[in-house]
Amino acid sequence: MELDLVICGGTVVTGSDMFRCDVGIRGERIACLGDGLRGKRQVDAEGLLVLPGGVDGHCHIEQLEPDGSIHEETFETASRSGFLGGTTTAICFAAQFKGAPIGPTLDRYRAMAARSAMDYSFHQIITDPTDRVIEQELPQIVASGIRSFKAFLTYDPLRLDDAQFLRVLAAARKLGALVSVHCENYDAIAWRTEMLLAAGLSAPLYHAWSRPVVVEREATYRAIALAELVDQPIQIFHVSSPEVAAEIARAQRRGVKVWAETCPQYLTLDASDMDRPGAEGAKFICSPSPRDSLARAGLWEDIRAGTLDIISSDHCGYSFAGGKGKLVHGADAPFTRIPNGIPGLATRLPLLFTEGVVAGHIDLNAFVRLTATNAARLFGLYPAKGTIAPGSDADLVLWDPAAEGVITNAALGHAIDYTPYEGRRTIGKAVMTFSRGEMVMESGIVRAASGRGRFLARGPYGFIKPTGQTPNGFMA
Amino acid sequence: MELDLVICGGTVVTGSDMFRCDVGIRGERIACLGDGLRGKRQVDAEGLLVLPGGVDGHCHIEQLEPDGSIHEETFETASRSGFLGGTTTAICFAAQFKGAPIGPTLDRYRAMAARSAMDYSFHQIITDPTDRVIEQELPQIVASGIRSFKAFLTYDPLRLDDAQFLRVLAAARKLGALVSVHCENYDAIAWRTEMLLAAGLSAPLYHAWSRPVVVEREATYRAIALAELVDQPIQIFHVSSPEVAAEIARAQRRGVKVWAETCPQYLTLDASDMDRPGAEGAKFICSPSPRDSLARAGLWEDIRAGTLDIISSDHCGYSFAGGKGKLVHGADAPFTRIPNGIPGLATRLPLLFTEGVVAGHIDLNAFVRLTATNAARLFGLYPAKGTIAPGSDADLVLWDPAAEGVITNAALGHAIDYTPYEGRRTIGKAVMTFSRGEMVMESGIVRAASGRGRFLARGPYGFIKPTGQTPNGFMA
Amino acid sequence: MELDLVICGGTVVTGSDMFRCDVGIRGERIACLGDGLRGKRQVDAEGLLVLPGGVDGHCHIEQLEPDGSIHEETFETASRSGFLGGTTTAICFAAQFKGAPIGPTLDRYRAMAARSAMDYSFHQIITDPTDRVIEQELPQIVASGIRSFKAFLTYDPLRLDDAQFLRVLAAARKLGALVSVHCENYDAIAWRTEMLLAAGLSAPLYHAWSRPVVVEREATYRAIALAELVDQPIQIFHVSSPEVAAEIARAQRRGVKVWAETCPQYLTLDASDMDRPGAEGAKFICSPSPRDSLARAGLWEDIRAGTLDIISSDHCGYSFAGGKGKLVHGADAPFTRIPNGIPGLATRLPLLFTEGVVAGHIDLNAFVRLTATNAARLFGLYPAKGTIAPGSDADLVLWDPAAEGVITNAALGHAIDYTPYEGRRTIGKAVMTFSRGEMVMESGIVRAASGRGRFLARGPYGFIKPTGQTPNGFMA
Amino acid sequence: MELDLVICGGTVVTGSDMFRCDVGIRGERIACLGDGLRGKRQVDAEGLLVLPGGVDGHCHIEQLEPDGSIHEETFETASRSGFLGGTTTAICFAAQFKGAPIGPTLDRYRAMAARSAMDYSFHQIITDPTDRVIEQELPQIVASGIRSFKAFLTYDPLRLDDAQFLRVLAAARKLGALVSVHCENYDAIAWRTEMLLAAGLSAPLYHAWSRPVVVEREATYRAIALAELVDQPIQIFHVSSPEVAAEIARAQRRGVKVWAETCPQYLTLDASDMDRPGAEGAKFICSPSPRDSLARAGLWEDIRAGTLDIISSDHCGYSFAGGKGKLVHGADAPFTRIPNGIPGLATRLPLLFTEGVVAGHIDLNAFVRLTATNAARLFGLYPAKGTIAPGSDADLVLWDPAAEGVITNAALGHAIDYTPYEGRRTIGKAVMTFSRGEMVMESGIVRAASGRGRFLARGPYGFIKPTGQTPNGFMA
Repeated sequence: MELDLVICGGTVVTGSDMFRCDVGIRGERIACLGDGLRGKRQVDAEGLLVLPGGVDGHCHIEQLEPDGSIHEETFETASRSGFLGGTTTAICFAAQFKGAPIGPTLDRYRAMAARSAMDYSFHQIITDPTDRVIEQELPQIVASGIRSFKAFLTYDPLRLDDAQFLRVLAAARKLGALVSVHCENYDAIAWRTEMLLAAGLSAPLYHAWSRPVVVEREATYRAIALAELVDQPIQIFHVSSPEVAAEIARAQRRGVKVWAETCPQYLTLDASDMDRPGAEGAKFICSPSPRDSLARAGLWEDIRAGTLDIISSDHCGYSFAGGKGKLVHGADAPFTRIPNGIPGLATRLPLLFTEGVVAGHIDLNAFVRLTATNAARLFGLYPAKGTIAPGSDADLVLWDPAAEGVITNAALGHAIDYTPYEGRRTIGKAVMTFSRGEMVMESGIVRAASGRGRFLARGPYGFIKPTGQTPNGFMA
Repeated sequence: MELDLVICGGTVVTGSDMFRCDVGIRGERIACLGDGLRGKRQVDAEGLLVLPGGVDGHCHIEQLEPDGSIHEETFETASRSGFLGGTTTAICFAAQFKGAPIGPTLDRYRAMAARSAMDYSFHQIITDPTDRVIEQELPQIVASGIRSFKAFLTYDPLRLDDAQFLRVLAAARKLGALVSVHCENYDAIAWRTEMLLAAGLSAPLYHAWSRPVVVEREATYRAIALAELVDQPIQIFHVSSPEVAAEIARAQRRGVKVWAETCPQYLTLDASDMDRPGAEGAKFICSPSPRDSLARAGLWEDIRAGTLDIISSDHCGYSFAGGKGKLVHGADAPFTRIPNGIPGLATRLPLLFTEGVVAGHIDLNAFVRLTATNAARLFGLYPAKGTIAPGSDADLVLWDPAAEGVITNAALGHAIDYTPYEGRRTIGKAVMTFSRGEMVMESGIVRAASGRGRFLARGPYGFIKPTGQTPNGFMA
Repeated sequence: MELDLVICGGTVVTGSDMFRCDVGIRGERIACLGDGLRGKRQVDAEGLLVLPGGVDGHCHIEQLEPDGSIHEETFETASRSGFLGGTTTAICFAAQFKGAPIGPTLDRYRAMAARSAMDYSFHQIITDPTDRVIEQELPQIVASGIRSFKAFLTYDPLRLDDAQFLRVLAAARKLGALVSVHCENYDAIAWRTEMLLAAGLSAPLYHAWSRPVVVEREATYRAIALAELVDQPIQIFHVSSPEVAAEIARAQRRGVKVWAETCPQYLTLDASDMDRPGAEGAKFICSPSPRDSLARAGLWEDIRAGTLDIISSDHCGYSFAGGKGKLVHGADAPFTRIPNGIPGLATRLPLLFTEGVVAGHIDLNAFVRLTATNAARLFGLYPAKGTIAPGSDADLVLWDPAAEGVITNAALGHAIDYTPYEGRRTIGKAVMTFSRGEMVMESGIVRAASGRGRFLARGPYGFIKPTGQTPNGFMA
Repeated sequence: MELDLVICGGTVVTGSDMFRCDVGIRGERIACLGDGLRGKRQVDAEGLLVLPGGVDGHCHIEQLEPDGSIHEETFETASRSGFLGGTTTAICFAAQFKGAPIGPTLDRYRAMAARSAMDYSFHQIITDPTDRVIEQELPQIVASGIRSFKAFLTYDPLRLDDAQFLRVLAAARKLGALVSVHCENYDAIAWRTEMLLAAGLSAPLYHAWSRPVVVEREATYRAIALAELVDQPIQIFHVSSPEVAAEIARAQRRGVKVWAETCPQYLTLDASDMDRPGAEGAKFICSPSPRDSLARAGLWEDIRAGTLDIISSDHCGYSFAGGKGKLVHGADAPFTRIPNGIPGLATRLPLLFTEGVVAGHIDLNAFVRLTATNAARLFGLYPAKGTIAPGSDADLVLWDPAAEGVITNAALGHAIDYTPYEGRRTIGKAVMTFSRGEMVMESGIVRAASGRGRFLARGPYGFIKPTGQTPNGFMA
């Protein structure tokens, strides 16, 4: 058994274990874990952690907007940013245009993604679940390995009403696909927004005021209830508050198959960040809105309790020069005209390590589960992705747990001209990243050919927590 | 790197992962996980699961009773029974005699255990926490690697009152030891028992009537409250009911460091089993008492929720001929005179696999965590015990997940002349067991030298669930 | 002080007290409670309870349907039925026609109600909250003493979407009106119904299948969430299940001003009643659907806990000959074409006394609060209605707590040709009813002039449970 | 019908109602409620509230201490203080001396109480439940109308262990008596105290440190659990914290017959009050200890939710000169030597009115229930005491809801030389007090003959909340 590459002397961390050993790689896969391995190439990992490459389950990359514009982040820039931050797999979005079939648009996404250096897959956003879409397109899409749909309960023109959402849930159930949901109540936000603008409250901060927690909590409860009705597993995206998590936990306790994600912004930012002077506040606008310190403290408890089991980036960048900051916000350019979303692909792991592991909220196994294993399981990528084991893809990150750093946008590699975390101190960083056995990042330098990334045809969703159903059907 | 033994082609299961690979062993330890390994000896595991050897955190073996008698189960018979059932490590009990120092008695236990074929450690039962015991003996005992104390809140003459229990908690806190607790309210049981006997209700069934759930629930709440007061981590032994688990879950949610175990008897037996005719009911007498089908269903939910994170045997055998059944139970020989406890070392894994995994309550990773990983972590044996990873002890079980069987006492290898599970059908069984690289059981035949077992000097208790404190101090 | 009428020797029951005394009446009001009173007329109440006349907060009488038809129950028949059953005040509904102003329709209701013998008021159903309705009509309607709006979250063409419901809540807040809500998710029912009919499941029973509890629970949660957003007090109508009540209780605990009603049908009927042969099942169709015995048991607990604080009839009768039963139900005439609603005005008190007081779920004070005091408080009729005290209207019921009876439709006095309770045994009945000092019913004979009833201009909603705000502004 | 006294034009408040009317009194009882009453004497109550005289369910008066000393508060001084503060009935304590029979001691209490001007009864404190006490004395004591026992779970030599407490519960069940309990864990307090004193922390503040909430919460849980086991109704005395109330609420929800009291000190004082300079802190020492502002806010919620349904004084005075303040507290005279208890008979109603009603936590009906009706019901005094209704005792308080005042010890009438509330501003005060038709206090002047008070032979405990069992057996 000849090995192509051996990562020597690091401490391997998986979702449940931690052990010092060499990692032997043959071709694109992990061949062997053991002591004293030898291969054609050796990499010294002494003093470093060896982690599974990050799996980011929620990234908006080169997404086509209903108005014809396109996200500035390309698959090339996103790949660079991911590798720098220790992420080797991203699940992005292919969005249906309302009133149009999915197929041609999905083809455009596939074409754009062909330039990716990272491995990737898509969640299919459904905005118009016509009979034709449900009966003809979705079966093909699922058959091609895109096994998750995304539903928006707010945003025009993306949002689904309850009747449409039920159709999507029912279709997913039939096809064995997962449904991930953006939960906020559209009418409630519209009502609040109208009141705020009428009162002259149009600055970026009022974005947060337009969507208080109750708006997210209600939509989450509704999404879960409708999923219960259909008996369809769902995932709640970007939970911003323990009040929302409490509804999810209650559903989980009564046996509903619901999982939930949160994002670093909800663990590290505040609504008050949107109140920074001038247009600065716009840099923090995303939906749901970050809340406050009490909410952040509560979310860590929900993470520990397992209610929130995935931490994704919801990377969704609009450059400050080109969008977020170009308007003089105020009565003429209210918060409603500022693009929603913040970049976070490269900062996901360092922020979570600093605020989670170093600060003592989670241990290293939980860090791995939250950033890699659980997303891989839920989205049907496990065990190729998300763990370190013989047979798995050699997607690995060498992580220096003691490295101190400061976040600067210049080092993040993405296409966006700012980061909401500029200047933040971090502990822990990726010093080397491997994707399917290839070293794609070393010491902040990415070397990875455009187009080397693969589209990942995914399997059925797996269960994260013990449920009596063995993940991915092993027992059968 | 030469390997002494390779287990080929099985599917390795750990607490979070499952992957097909060979397991390479050098000396007593796992050296390597990978494909195509070769060693001096090969064992074919095709079609089998490769599990970490079971860690049974709660076994009464050759225990000395206050009345001078001694448990019939010896370390030799227990080792045989453990290997047959897929368990390779047992933590037993060394009981202080009330009014006496611990040292000499512990020496007797050590001497008896020297004949063990299984690896073992002790929980130190404290019945008399005098100043001398606390100040002079416990530090030495902990230093010797016995890092857990057991407290009884019921049973004369073992039980501690609240003042004594607080002293034990405080001593444990100072020494970094864990405290495991048998929780039932002594006075309440005595009051009920007096009433039952006065009413002529003396048959085995009334053992259960003498200790309804509220008696266990109260003592559990009290144990947790006193541990909160002292800020000392504790483990609740043998939780019999979801009502009890609910109190534990509440404490866990408010951050109390409390863990809990249940046992196969509470997942598979009923109080009504004690109502079998004649002396048969005595075979099912243990404390707390098994409850009913509703309680069993609830316990599975508590297991899935992580409230109950270890499943031990509470193996505590009294032979039917020699104790349990020798009296004609009734007014002359009431339930209070029947020895408490049932055997369960060999049946723990098959019962849990059948009723848990096959019945769909838990998945395979949970099975491993519940039977091995979590006990190893909590009791300071991890990562030597409880997982399959390079560097860990080569304690392995080859498990046939499809093997159908019927429990018969003759096949259990223990010293006890009955099993409460006689005739039960099972799916899944250990076909081969390895202890530190040595094959000690094959196809129901145990070959293991008396005395080959090692006393395990344990490290500090580790945390099972993410808590912000890395298990066993990795980060420090 | 001369008294016109004295009710002698009965036991007066109020919301918190019970005492034996005479009740002295002068004109339309209670003048005096005491011993040995003398008046122009004496009525002997020895051995009887003297209760405040029932206040039924939820009655559909002579309601105009969107299709131009009109409910068969008239104000005259309803008055008779109310008096027979011990109810002296009813709050009915005036329904806006979608697309039309409220005014003219409300005038029609006022004209019809002018024939009432019972005192009455209206809830204004809002189906089309246009600017004109909100800005011009609602202020006048509230000023006229109609201080509550009803919103439907299901039923075409009555239902409001979330945006419309928010407008109604906001309007009510400004005007100091209460909002009562029918909570079921329209889209979910439509989705289930389509599936049921497609499967050929069209019999009456499937009405219940079309609207499982989750459908009501979701809409209740949503209604509460939107009311929280607006900070507007609401009442949840006809809670059918403890799962729904649990959401209300949670909101109450976090300080939301939400009250809730249930009805005798949810305490005494089953979904399985709809499965009676032929068209018989249609007699039990109402929305939400009655559930099962477990739900009924739970609702009694919610009543005791104070979560459900009003028991109304939701009287809504369609005669069997004229509507409910005229179709041969089946594929050609599915459950969707059967009118929704059952009669219950006259049976409310006897059913609740039998199943509540006699069966031991509630005491007599609770009976009075649930049937009279709480509705009077919440709907701004207290203290004129809902209690027995000097100054209150002399609306009184002499109640024989030991009278055994059998419900037969003939004795109920309403316009409907059936009762879902036919043949049920009851204990307790009204033997005499007084409305504003006038004896209107004696021994099953109603003597009350058409038109003697008064429209009750109501005050602001009062709080039922201690809230720190004294009901109806006493302290100010 | 001739009336002896008429209270004219006030606003009568009962547990559920409020109405303006005259109150006619004949002899010792209320004869009539109505307008335009005339009697031999008229008292003008225009602008005032007419409340039922306060019933204080928890007062230590002239109590005999185990050391032979006696409380300074006598029945004469206590009566004066009660009348000044609007309280007309007190339930005091007769304490068994450990090792002695109850009878002779009880006779001493009866003799002392014969000088009372207020009506009174006793709770019998049981410290030594021997067979003789249980079989011979308790039946006689209950038969004499003392229908409640008090158990201490802490304090030497008063406390009962679990076995003794079970005996008391079982005896009470057989006799139909209520058991009220002081819940704190003795061993836990002793353990903490030893640690504090060893650390030199002996000032009054450390009294609070010696008994954190967990100590009270545990004992409360235990008391409830043991009462569940016996199925005996109990009342939890002086709940100091919402954490404790939460355990009571949980038990109530599962149907346990448990009620609970709190006291003004837990709603208005802080543990930090004990940190006042010099011996001042001693003035606030009582057990359990007052907590903090968060606890106070939570207790109001528990009162609103009905979990805590009685507010008593726990009046227990030791004069500052004679006990509380005589030692220079510190190492030589630690907090353990300061007598426990504070005076509160006269301040109960004004404090609760100010902090409860005026501050908006409760309404007037709740004020009446909490201060009079509920205690009268629970302790078997209703309807003679605790409400305003024909036939009830004419125990009335004319209350000026707008009177502003400042608490000064001089005006409180008790035997104690300080009040912990000195200088506190209040709104609302008793301007006139009537006891059985006799005016005993007017404008701060008490005129009431020593010995006019009556011993109240009480009936069985009644239920406060709807339970299906009509209070005091009306239906039977």
